[in-house]
Amino acid sequence: MPEQPVTACLIVIGNEILSGRTQDANLAYLGRRLSEIGVRLVEARVILDSEEAIVAAVNEARARFTYVFTSGGIGPTHDDITAASVAKAFGVPLIANPEARAILEAHYAAGELNEARLRMTNTPEGARLIENPVSKAPGFQMDNVFVMAGIPVIMQAMFEGIVHRLVGGKPLVSRSVMVHLPEGTLAEGLAALQARYPDVEMGSYPFTRQGRFGARVVLRTTDTDRLQAAAGELDGLIGELGAEADWD
Amino acid sequence: MPEQPVTACLIVIGNEILSGRTQDANLAYLGRRLSEIGVRLVEARVILDSEEAIVAAVNEARARFTYVFTSGGIGPTHDDITAASVAKAFGVPLIANPEARAILEAHYAAGELNEARLRMTNTPEGARLIENPVSKAPGFQMDNVFVMAGIPVIMQAMFEGIVHRLVGGKPLVSRSVMVHLPEGTLAEGLAALQARYPDVEMGSYPFTRQGRFGARVVLRTTDTDRLQAAAGELDGLIGELGAEADWD
Repeated sequence: MPEQPVTACLIVIGNEILSGRTQDANLAYLGRRLSEIGVRLVEARVILDSEEAIVAAVNEARARFTYVFTSGGIGPTHDDITAASVAKAFGVPLIANPEARAILEAHYAAGELNEARLRMTNTPEGARLIENPVSKAPGFQMDNVFVMAGIPVIMQAMFEGIVHRLVGGKPLVSRSVMVHLPEGTLAEGLAALQARYPDVEMGSYPFTRQGRFGARVVLRTTDTDRLQAAAGELDGLIGELGAEADWD
Repeated sequence: MPEQPVTACLIVIGNEILSGRTQDANLAYLGRRLSEIGVRLVEARVILDSEEAIVAAVNEARARFTYVFTSGGIGPTHDDITAASVAKAFGVPLIANPEARAILEAHYAAGELNEARLRMTNTPEGARLIENPVSKAPGFQMDNVFVMAGIPVIMQAMFEGIVHRLVGGKPLVSRSVMVHLPEGTLAEGLAALQARYPDVEMGSYPFTRQGRFGARVVLRTTDTDRLQAAAGELDGLIGELGAEADWD
């Protein structure tokens, strides 16, 4: 098991996310799944379908993080430029990948594998394919960079197919509680608790529901005993403040 | 009206977004609203509640983009460190802001304005406040950086209060159509259309619905006439391919 924290970055590629037309769903999925295997998603970026933006984001992220995932831009249309941009980021040629071509030839009826669809068989030289059980056109891996589709159902299937390639650290365990108190009432006691448990990350996330303010408090650590001890003290604090604690 | 494209970056601050517990809703809202006033959201980043991450992201973004918006981390709890981090990014002290204090003193009953809530009156020196009509604790502006709350209803109210401070470019106009054809069938004709309309951005975004593949094609430009001409040709192309075009 690695000694250093295992980190990841997601790069979401797509004008439609930034224009607000499409709501991203891949970040939340990846964040949850990576947590479960002890990989910490520490950054996500949403960028345009632009070669310059993709090259810059991929090269910065692959140097900074253990793993990099991209979603989007690997389809057959003219605005799908992720594969070519990742090849450029790695300084290798974009090639017609024979393995990817064999997959699409087996999938499409004669005549359906047109020039546009053949674009989906282009990968950077040296890429290892990522299987796409939904619509066949594969993603690919280059070193620590995993290039996946944008459609959530395909991205998720691709991720589940490569999750065994990842080496995680010690998984974080967490507990969370809904507190029907304004954060300002909870804050002092919570800060004191955090000071006594520096090894347990304590986050407070306010919400409004039916016009009332509350907070979800999340405790995260790699140590189950410390988690339970901190949760017990937090439960006591909430009780002292006269509120109910709805633990997940 | 500015000659150069007017650009923006959103920095979403919050561990809970990256862990997948909370689904971000601010990106889509901001993307839509900025488009309407001729500001292009060209990047979004989601980062941890970490001083180092906030300082680095804010300083990079404020140099690269016309406007920078942050959401999250301005509440009363120990993990709300955005104001202090932005002060550090600008190299100015964090001060007890008298105007912010007056707002909270008018809002809270005697005794309720405790030390935790007073943290919400801290801003970088020189900040201009952003009104919070929902829960009063203000955001603030430093140069081209707008620091807002993470709760969507508050973030949106804050944005609507400062939108008049932004100077947009020529607004993009757009049309979009749902095509019930696989992208691979549409791709060749769409690429040819894009080549004839280099001034109209054409994006194709695949989807699956009830097991069938389709694509939403979005046309965006600043020129209404060119938009209508391109939409007319696209409609013809879809008809030639034997599919129906559901225009928004």
